[in-house]
Amino acid sequence: MAPATKTAPETQSEYKVIGTRPIRHDGVDKVTGRAQYGADVYLTGMLHGNVLRSPHAHARIVSIDAGKALALPGVKAVVTGQDLPDPGDKVANLGEASAPLRHLSLNVLARDKVLYQGHAVAAVAATDPHLAEEAAGLIEVEYELLPPVMDVMEAMKDGAPLLDENLRTKSFGTTGDKPTNVADHIHFELGDVEQGFAEADIVVEREFTTQTVHQGYIEPHNCTAFWNSDGQLTIWLSTQGSFTSRAQTSEILGVPISQVKVVPTEIGGGFGGKIATYLEPTAALLSKATGRPVKILMTREEVLQATGPTPASFMRVKMGAKKDGTLTAGSFWAAFDAGGFPGSPIGAACMCVFAPYNLPNGVIDGFDVLVNKPKSSAYRAPGATHAEFASETVVDEICEKLGMDPIEFRIKNASREGDRRVDGPVWPRIGCVETTEAAREHPHYAAPLEGPNRGRGVASGFWFNVGLKSSVHASVNPDGRVSLVEGSTDIGGTRTSVAMQMAEVLGIPAESVRPIVADTDAVGYTDVTGGSRVTFSTGYAAYEAAKDIQGQMVGRAAVLWEIPEDQVEAQDGDYVANDGSGRSISFAELAAKLDETGGPIVGRATVDPKGVGGAFCTQIADVEVDPDTGKVEILRFTVVQDAGRAIHPSYVEGQMQGGAVQGIGWALNEEYVYNEQGHLLNGSFLDYRMPTSLDLPMIDTKIVEVPNPGHPFGVRGVGEVPIVPPPAAIANAVYQATGLRLRDLPMSPPRVLNAILEKKGNGSG
Amino acid sequence: MAPATKTAPETQSEYKVIGTRPIRHDGVDKVTGRAQYGADVYLTGMLHGNVLRSPHAHARIVSIDAGKALALPGVKAVVTGQDLPDPGDKVANLGEASAPLRHLSLNVLARDKVLYQGHAVAAVAATDPHLAEEAAGLIEVEYELLPPVMDVMEAMKDGAPLLDENLRTKSFGTTGDKPTNVADHIHFELGDVEQGFAEADIVVEREFTTQTVHQGYIEPHNCTAFWNSDGQLTIWLSTQGSFTSRAQTSEILGVPISQVKVVPTEIGGGFGGKIATYLEPTAALLSKATGRPVKILMTREEVLQATGPTPASFMRVKMGAKKDGTLTAGSFWAAFDAGGFPGSPIGAACMCVFAPYNLPNGVIDGFDVLVNKPKSSAYRAPGATHAEFASETVVDEICEKLGMDPIEFRIKNASREGDRRVDGPVWPRIGCVETTEAAREHPHYAAPLEGPNRGRGVASGFWFNVGLKSSVHASVNPDGRVSLVEGSTDIGGTRTSVAMQMAEVLGIPAESVRPIVADTDAVGYTDVTGGSRVTFSTGYAAYEAAKDIQGQMVGRAAVLWEIPEDQVEAQDGDYVANDGSGRSISFAELAAKLDETGGPIVGRATVDPKGVGGAFCTQIADVEVDPDTGKVEILRFTVVQDAGRAIHPSYVEGQMQGGAVQGIGWALNEEYVYNEQGHLLNGSFLDYRMPTSLDLPMIDTKIVEVPNPGHPFGVRGVGEVPIVPPPAAIANAVYQATGLRLRDLPMSPPRVLNAILEKKGNGSG
Repeated sequence: MAPATKTAPETQSEYKVIGTRPIRHDGVDKVTGRAQYGADVYLTGMLHGNVLRSPHAHARIVSIDAGKALALPGVKAVVTGQDLPDPGDKVANLGEASAPLRHLSLNVLARDKVLYQGHAVAAVAATDPHLAEEAAGLIEVEYELLPPVMDVMEAMKDGAPLLDENLRTKSFGTTGDKPTNVADHIHFELGDVEQGFAEADIVVEREFTTQTVHQGYIEPHNCTAFWNSDGQLTIWLSTQGSFTSRAQTSEILGVPISQVKVVPTEIGGGFGGKIATYLEPTAALLSKATGRPVKILMTREEVLQATGPTPASFMRVKMGAKKDGTLTAGSFWAAFDAGGFPGSPIGAACMCVFAPYNLPNGVIDGFDVLVNKPKSSAYRAPGATHAEFASETVVDEICEKLGMDPIEFRIKNASREGDRRVDGPVWPRIGCVETTEAAREHPHYAAPLEGPNRGRGVASGFWFNVGLKSSVHASVNPDGRVSLVEGSTDIGGTRTSVAMQMAEVLGIPAESVRPIVADTDAVGYTDVTGGSRVTFSTGYAAYEAAKDIQGQMVGRAAVLWEIPEDQVEAQDGDYVANDGSGRSISFAELAAKLDETGGPIVGRATVDPKGVGGAFCTQIADVEVDPDTGKVEILRFTVVQDAGRAIHPSYVEGQMQGGAVQGIGWALNEEYVYNEQGHLLNGSFLDYRMPTSLDLPMIDTKIVEVPNPGHPFGVRGVGEVPIVPPPAAIANAVYQATGLRLRDLPMSPPRVLNAILEKKGNGSG
Repeated sequence: MAPATKTAPETQSEYKVIGTRPIRHDGVDKVTGRAQYGADVYLTGMLHGNVLRSPHAHARIVSIDAGKALALPGVKAVVTGQDLPDPGDKVANLGEASAPLRHLSLNVLARDKVLYQGHAVAAVAATDPHLAEEAAGLIEVEYELLPPVMDVMEAMKDGAPLLDENLRTKSFGTTGDKPTNVADHIHFELGDVEQGFAEADIVVEREFTTQTVHQGYIEPHNCTAFWNSDGQLTIWLSTQGSFTSRAQTSEILGVPISQVKVVPTEIGGGFGGKIATYLEPTAALLSKATGRPVKILMTREEVLQATGPTPASFMRVKMGAKKDGTLTAGSFWAAFDAGGFPGSPIGAACMCVFAPYNLPNGVIDGFDVLVNKPKSSAYRAPGATHAEFASETVVDEICEKLGMDPIEFRIKNASREGDRRVDGPVWPRIGCVETTEAAREHPHYAAPLEGPNRGRGVASGFWFNVGLKSSVHASVNPDGRVSLVEGSTDIGGTRTSVAMQMAEVLGIPAESVRPIVADTDAVGYTDVTGGSRVTFSTGYAAYEAAKDIQGQMVGRAAVLWEIPEDQVEAQDGDYVANDGSGRSISFAELAAKLDETGGPIVGRATVDPKGVGGAFCTQIADVEVDPDTGKVEILRFTVVQDAGRAIHPSYVEGQMQGGAVQGIGWALNEEYVYNEQGHLLNGSFLDYRMPTSLDLPMIDTKIVEVPNPGHPFGVRGVGEVPIVPPPAAIANAVYQATGLRLRDLPMSPPRVLNAILEKKGNGSG
């Protein structure tokens, strides 16, 4: 177990369950292959769907002729965007994520225009998947080609091809009456930026680019829908949010939300990419048309072409500091490509870019820009990795120029409780200082790094995490175990991290709580599994439901002993009479007596906690750069992160390692490669290069615990922030190894080699 | 809709949902074949089980050799009773139905002895069901035959073959130290019986027999079990009680109860026969042995041979009355065959036999007797049909001798609130008088019945109904509909009758509550669907959960309007401010505002209501007896019954009709025919004669509503009592038609013809 740091005000030992590492409840199912994923769903009479997708990045749909497809024996139905209700100007009611219904609906099935290669145009249902694929190929679509715009800076230019002729946005000081590809402009300001830069002894201003990167979850998207003749639509789905999918599907199809039931299957990774709706309305339409269940599975190519990667970006960061290392001002200007519809994570990028630093003066401008790529989606700390790649690289350059140790610089300028962020809020209790200090104390930071072409870099990252709504209920069994029902699909071991919080309250072993994930009809409303919120928020609900059970159990002990309730106390796992009698009964013993004391006990809670605790992470990367090939090898890598409270340290460490690995992939290799026509050239895992275990050393982890006062156990959320620092940490390490400041991701061998060759004066590019 | 009778203190009009007839929520699934029954369960890698059953009614198992079966390719495992844990002397903890574990365990898989033809001896799992059947046939079992005893009176004799050599029961004034087949003796006494008979002007004493009768549900028993390598056992099952099956399986297998999850499938009829455990432990053992899911389906022959029919019986009833028609005393002596293990419904028979009458003096003796037949099980008002066949026939004879109208006699002697029953309790508010009066007023009773060989009979019946424990929870959706989760498997439309009670409280349409039946992990403890308890008890839980939701909604309206909670009132479906502002908001409007007023709302309740309301039923039967064949034709049939409150009158009527039809089948045709070796000779629906629609007229119904003060809407329970009167009503009608008092069931053509011929002086038998 990772020991608590000296900075955590409480030690692990106050807990019996929290901080231990029980085997996950769904472990056997997962390792034996018993766990049911979406592709495993088979229903009687089921048909197979296939989606016809646009081969063009930008085109007008002139006509669709499904005659030949429908003539093929075994083909049961073809649907197009015309089968979806007209979204009009309605705003889809999706709670916090409400958005124009047009964007949701048109992304699911194009109407007049296709906006990216892979945009869904029609779909077919047939008796087997191969037939469905063949039939999709027989649907004849006439297109009128339009020029695509693939680059975010090109798309912002006057005269750029327009994706949405009706889009108007007030930005750049314009009145917002000109057509544009800019969907949103975010602006934050704090203090006096000019004055701040004037006070600086050193100012560094740099430009950065990143490319489109996919989450790369192992399991492709899938969906099985059955639209019953009584109007009830059931959807079996690999999703991060069954209730989110329910809401989107209901809005897109224009049916009451309670007529839709989403049954979440196990999920083979999501990382933010399995929140948006892609297949559900289409499978539902095909089911309605045929009266039979319809299953659609995406291929990997479809996943890469047509689901939601994180966007490419252009960013400019300027920061100024005094000679003593005090930061005086910063500015951030960034344009993120949203893809075909608005909604890049530019907002979160703007919130996170300067978060690790107490910046007295700052200005932030962020732009959400349409280009002819798939609509971008959330990806693990969305936007923060881009933004902090830029800011943390600039910070490293400032440290170099100041001759300051980069960790000391970070501690000196660290955000502390009470400081105001450039984007507005005042920091509550955070672990920025503690995390950076723990990185400084880590043996890795002092370890010698010898040899040529080697370098060490550090970078920090921040992610705010989210709260949102969760419901659980739980039933006490006569053998003293508790069945816990939650609505959060389990991606990273949250069945266990949530169950452990209930067990802690009840004073019973983690194994005595049996967590299950239920469908949208069977459990109270629960928001998406994302934003590192499940262990925080669903865990909070489990805590409250456990308190509810505990209160009822106190009442039962009182009945049993025939004393007033206020003479019974819950102490750890026992219920104790404080009437001087010395009577005591364990949870399990009392559970066996529910029948005789009033019947079954069900605890429940619904929460919407506001005390979200943001998380900081500092990482140390050692690299070696091959000067002949440009290949960057990770020699050693350490992740130091504030978990608030590590409920199950193994899963926290797993998240820290997994996030770092994805960040390393993004830093070194991953990118969408498009040609001028907007065709994706590397739409497979053979060509889209993700890191494998052979590319990586074991990732060291160090959990810092600065409890979040907004959660009963101090939980912050751990899933996202570890992806943030790797690109900057590696870029800073590459600089140490090569003297080259790389500001364009990925730092792939050709790009690194080009930079090396350019530095030598004979660059090839 | 059936109008409320004048005797019901409240009229239907006070309710908006209760008393209406919405389409059932699961209707489309049921009529389109989408509903998933146990036989529809298919799991990856699933094996098929087959049970080898004893061909002998009574034998010792000398040896079992599974070698040849296991050698067959595709056969994966064979299990026998030796694979189950030794039950020892443990009492299985099944709540109200606790019983010696030996009886449960040995009935599932025999150990040393087989006690009836069809008793399970071994089971095999193989890759297909035909192979499994073939393999079961290859298991070699050596038996040592023992003499069977099939008749309950024979079994009570000294020197009868003993089923359980260790059984000792104190009865007959013995000290209980002699071996016996008598498993239990029930004795009730009230007043002074000798004195009572001495006061009578007329005493009638008669003997009756009934034969073994099966519930005859359409769907045979089935079970699929998967015992995961983490110890968790999941069972998909057609059952009346998922929690009951969970408890039995856990006890028989000796595993903690929370390691067993029962997923109830839809159920194709149960009538009491799908409460006991037959296949679950066996399928579980086979799954454990193979590591794969195992499904077992019974054939119809297995269902008839080896599940739990209602027993054959011998009964003696004696009743005395004064000339003015006042009943003075009654005695009941009855022996019910339990089958191979104790547990006939003799107790309930003793509670119900005299229930329609205020009998000042009575004595009741009931015996539970082992015979070499399958262990008897509950069957719709278990025991009452036997007992009241006897008592209601004797009453008819008394009325004849007194020259009194049989309904007037019943009204005169009717049980009323405050009267004491022979079995002890004092009657609460009941509808005995009102039901009988409603029968008297029914047009059927006054209608002319002309023609030869025709007769009209009446009979009453009582069933006490039960309460027991139920849990529900419910979640409010933003479109104003509510998802309701219950643990009661739905046999007779209870999804709807429970949902309607929630809808009534919330002031929303029945269709706005979506009821679902969840598995044992996903919902709080809920007792069996039986005893006519679901609409009463689970409905009560739905009422309480709705009140819980309503209270939370009041709080949300208060938040919305920024006024104290006590200034908001729930009025029908609206929430109204009583602060003089005139503000009002509907349930659906408020449901759409949960997010902004505090988050999701989940209501819940667990109940164990004690105010159970018993139900009375009076039936009128017109018959015509064919003097040449002995065939009894039902010309007209009317069921008058106190529902307390008819939540969904169509389902109440359906239960009244269905119960009457089963009673008619029992009266006229149904019986197990055994040979001397104890072999069942009519083990198929071809030979076991159940009534079809061609045998029956439309059954008229008349709902009486004397609200049960123990339920918020007055519900009593309607499923069982209508099966009670038919045998007596028909026997009384046959007497009117033929002058013959038939006291042995069934009144099948051969038996009736024999009686006719005997009366003519040339009986053939």
